[in-house]
Amino acid sequence: MSNSSSEVVPATPLLKDDLDIVIPTIRNLDFLEMWRPFFQPYHLIIVQDGDPNKTIKVPEGFDYELYNRNDINRILGPKANCISFKDSACRCFGYMVSKKKYIYTIDDDCFVAKDPSGKEINALKQHIQNLLSPSTPFFFNTLYDPYREGADFVRGYPFSLREGARTAVSHGLWLNIPDYDAPTQLVKPLERNQRYVDAVLTIPKGTLFPMCGMNLGFDRELIGPAMYFGLMGDGQPIGRYDDMWAGWCVKVICDHLGLGVKTGLPYIWHSKASNPFVNLKKEYNGIFWQEEIIPFFQSAVLSKDSTTVQKCYIELSKQVNEKLGKIDPYFNKLADAMVTWIEAWDELNPPKVATGVTNGPTKAK
Amino acid sequence: MSNSSSEVVPATPLLKDDLDIVIPTIRNLDFLEMWRPFFQPYHLIIVQDGDPNKTIKVPEGFDYELYNRNDINRILGPKANCISFKDSACRCFGYMVSKKKYIYTIDDDCFVAKDPSGKEINALKQHIQNLLSPSTPFFFNTLYDPYREGADFVRGYPFSLREGARTAVSHGLWLNIPDYDAPTQLVKPLERNQRYVDAVLTIPKGTLFPMCGMNLGFDRELIGPAMYFGLMGDGQPIGRYDDMWAGWCVKVICDHLGLGVKTGLPYIWHSKASNPFVNLKKEYNGIFWQEEIIPFFQSAVLSKDSTTVQKCYIELSKQVNEKLGKIDPYFNKLADAMVTWIEAWDELNPPKVATGVTNGPTKAK
Repeated sequence: MSNSSSEVVPATPLLKDDLDIVIPTIRNLDFLEMWRPFFQPYHLIIVQDGDPNKTIKVPEGFDYELYNRNDINRILGPKANCISFKDSACRCFGYMVSKKKYIYTIDDDCFVAKDPSGKEINALKQHIQNLLSPSTPFFFNTLYDPYREGADFVRGYPFSLREGARTAVSHGLWLNIPDYDAPTQLVKPLERNQRYVDAVLTIPKGTLFPMCGMNLGFDRELIGPAMYFGLMGDGQPIGRYDDMWAGWCVKVICDHLGLGVKTGLPYIWHSKASNPFVNLKKEYNGIFWQEEIIPFFQSAVLSKDSTTVQKCYIELSKQVNEKLGKIDPYFNKLADAMVTWIEAWDELNPPKVATGVTNGPTKAK
Repeated sequence: MSNSSSEVVPATPLLKDDLDIVIPTIRNLDFLEMWRPFFQPYHLIIVQDGDPNKTIKVPEGFDYELYNRNDINRILGPKANCISFKDSACRCFGYMVSKKKYIYTIDDDCFVAKDPSGKEINALKQHIQNLLSPSTPFFFNTLYDPYREGADFVRGYPFSLREGARTAVSHGLWLNIPDYDAPTQLVKPLERNQRYVDAVLTIPKGTLFPMCGMNLGFDRELIGPAMYFGLMGDGQPIGRYDDMWAGWCVKVICDHLGLGVKTGLPYIWHSKASNPFVNLKKEYNGIFWQEEIIPFFQSAVLSKDSTTVQKCYIELSKQVNEKLGKIDPYFNKLADAMVTWIEAWDELNPPKVATGVTNGPTKAK
């Protein structure tokens, strides 16, 4: 219905100077051509995965900086070992070197989707709307996002909660190829997601979700230091759990700090399924381990002293070391890498004000 | 997309002999004409609100039983005081006298809605689908109902949880007039819900929601005794919180017993807004009290010994008496009525098997 109303195109795109687009890649970024009308005003941070001697071509007219493995090693020194190699998990390096308040990250096999009316979806704009409006983690609103035009809080929604919470994460979805694990890919090779669900909703406090890194926006100042994509790929016993790991940590910390996580719109068009046999090889440990990891995160409790994302993350790393280390020594290594990540983050992002606690808890219950 | 496939119309409507439609009303049921193609095969239980001497006309061809206040008093005797008078909360008497496994309840100002393709929505059929397929209360699936055609569990969803939980409640939504409280009605008199969100989702364990009784299906055997709509209307200091009260109790008990609650599809067309001034008078105590009631239910814990809905409900009534009684003596009266309700329920619904615990906890975590 809202499509029929004339849309005012702002002279300056929203958050033009406050948002970086982070793209991990191993190939030329031809996919950006389709995104040009939406992405060109923004700055891109490209994290080149794999062989640093390969040249990645970026279409003309985009403003970008590009980091390959040599750059990561040079900038982080010995701390570079916390950044995954030969895995798109390396994208989190881009979060660390950004100086902006907001990040949008997208995979290079994701294209512009269309809404049911046939209109091309400006995914970035929707993410920004999601991030700039509050979340409702403390009570469920049956008409979904109450801050959206034409919607509100329904009868029975407590008035004291209608101010909402600050939104830290906006998790977008995918038309065409759904984000399935290898077993589901193998069983349903032809399944395509064709259902456009016109909703944005807050994932309630205390509920975990599978966060996919394919089409993801977040507020770097609110939650950035928790957006670590772990140790995946080359030399590691697991892959394709980078975003899941980040999602579990992020959600536990958002719940602790009273921040909101949204999922739903916008959709992107996910063009091709990755190889399910290769995926199974990467995933099989994770499929097994997640049966213990998820209960761990479901019951994780952070102390009142953890008033910043960094403090929360360090506390979580200790719990990972102690409790998940029993599953496999990999988790001891991962816990160490979590600490290294925070050290590297703080090195590249020194506190702006000497005294300030910037990410104190709000509305935590 | 699925609309284009030819739909097989079953010879016998789903659950024809296992579902009652409960309708509270004070007027002739002309609204049933529009529902005839969908409702006529089912049995109706009509609960007449207000003056028992008034005759309610039911369109021809419907199979129904009708109860007025005299009937309720005759059947329940002194226990009839747990059933509200001059308030649609009286509908829960219909849940009690039903002998069926499933209930669908609808208000008499609700009509058949259309989906975006213009097709009339068979709300009852969608509720039945919701109730007959499992729920996913223990982890959030970002592609919504994983059991729906064309959908599944996404990457990162624990395999041990993919069997899901039994579904106890299916909460449907409303196009046109949204279910707003009096203050929101007053502030937004012209707001209409025009957004058709093509999703069904499970409300996660530990999260409360505002359950509206306008368009609601549930499994009577799984959760019926908790579907008490409280003391509202005539002689009570509160109205329009009947369904909310039931929803809070139901959700706490479903969480305890490992049962699922779904919300989303189907939509009905809600034809007219009730008077916001009258509503405000009914609601104002509730608006105030809910600020304490909701934290009460959010922190309510039931004991392991409460293995049936009845036991859970009695335990909850004691907590209501003790903790909410401090707000207002009304809650002491309500707690007594909760006990009376269970006594009346058990009188009308004696256990089928002498030994059986039928509603033991499953998948509770």
